[in-house]
Amino acid sequence: MPEVSPDADLPQLIAEAIAGAGLTIGSGDVFVVAQKIVSKAEGAIVSLADVAPSQAAAEWAGKYGRDPAVVEVVLRESRRIVRMDRGVIISETRHGFICANAGVDASNVPPGCVTLLPRDPDASAAGLQAGLGARLGRSVAIIISCTFGRPWREGVVNVALGVAGLTPLLDCRGGTDAFGRRLHSTVIAVADEIASAAELVMGKTAGNPVAVVRGAAAWLGEGNGRMLLRPPATDMFR
Amino acid sequence: MPEVSPDADLPQLIAEAIAGAGLTIGSGDVFVVAQKIVSKAEGAIVSLADVAPSQAAAEWAGKYGRDPAVVEVVLRESRRIVRMDRGVIISETRHGFICANAGVDASNVPPGCVTLLPRDPDASAAGLQAGLGARLGRSVAIIISCTFGRPWREGVVNVALGVAGLTPLLDCRGGTDAFGRRLHSTVIAVADEIASAAELVMGKTAGNPVAVVRGAAAWLGEGNGRMLLRPPATDMFR
Repeated sequence: MPEVSPDADLPQLIAEAIAGAGLTIGSGDVFVVAQKIVSKAEGAIVSLADVAPSQAAAEWAGKYGRDPAVVEVVLRESRRIVRMDRGVIISETRHGFICANAGVDASNVPPGCVTLLPRDPDASAAGLQAGLGARLGRSVAIIISCTFGRPWREGVVNVALGVAGLTPLLDCRGGTDAFGRRLHSTVIAVADEIASAAELVMGKTAGNPVAVVRGAAAWLGEGNGRMLLRPPATDMFR
Repeated sequence: MPEVSPDADLPQLIAEAIAGAGLTIGSGDVFVVAQKIVSKAEGAIVSLADVAPSQAAAEWAGKYGRDPAVVEVVLRESRRIVRMDRGVIISETRHGFICANAGVDASNVPPGCVTLLPRDPDASAAGLQAGLGARLGRSVAIIISCTFGRPWREGVVNVALGVAGLTPLLDCRGGTDAFGRRLHSTVIAVADEIASAAELVMGKTAGNPVAVVRGAAAWLGEGNGRMLLRPPATDMFR
């Protein structure tokens, strides 16, 4: 994939990369697309020189050696601060994602800039699904992915922000186990697991912003990324 | 794989299943093994009829319609309660895992019983690595996996509890992005991503307690599952 600019035709670039790699796309294939290139194509990028940090952002940034303009952008992208301590901001974005720095990120972005998460990752996924489907002449499923940290585990893993053409949750409730016992509480986040599988070949430094995951036919169908967000009523860590 | 009993020779059963499936094991292959069969083979299983619930366990279980004996086992397996509300117990196990019900689980277990997590999942992984390696005549890498929920996302995903022969964290700090910018904070939890990829073919109801993930040669090496545990000092959600 070439570097993606704000006026890029992302479905076209992905279709060209597929053709260039000699890939044949089949049913059950899911395209996992890094949030970063979706944000770039949608112009969800901010020049830090244009950001005037609030006094609070500047003070907090100074205390922890962070860039005041980046902290300001993080706060603007947040609708609720979950934790803000020790130089780390965990917040809820306007979409409802709870993650570090509200998804604001400076890696693989031109110097002096940061990307924001796409305005509506499900709409972005639906747009890619339509555009890529038209170019490939077949229906496709899309996951727009991003790496998130976890409260109690080291390292980040890839998760699904936006989804189109895929059922993100596999509900095993009502099924039975090997002893005929009914499963009561198991719902598998297959879209997140597919995103994590894809990350293994995408990588932060490998520069593969799109991966094709095969064999996912069982999970194709209706769905979106919002289904993966835990509602506030069952959130025990607000 | 047949049903695993407490006296089972797990490396032998896995080696037989590989031979039966006609699989050739190559370098860079990682065996992902469901915690459930490891616990069964190690006898980490409790008959609920033998458990006398404390009054506190009984009262809490009654309030939320849960089995008092299961709640008692969960509390015994916990060294710290993180949240205990609305019928849900999130606790820290003696190993340091923070998860629902301390990993105590009744699915795919004979009626009236629950499994505990293995006493030492890294030792279990090392044992499987040695035993399976001897039977296959080559070195192998092992992940013992379990599905964990997430505080802010619906559904569970597979993660790595015990690890042998694999570096669980890929440290990108010090690397550079496409713009030559140094990556400051990115560490990828590849062992968890491999476990999640494997779950897609293992499944709760599919009854495949072992999966082979190929192409992982880049991450083979020294490591263990404890490396994936966030230390208390950086835990913002205790």
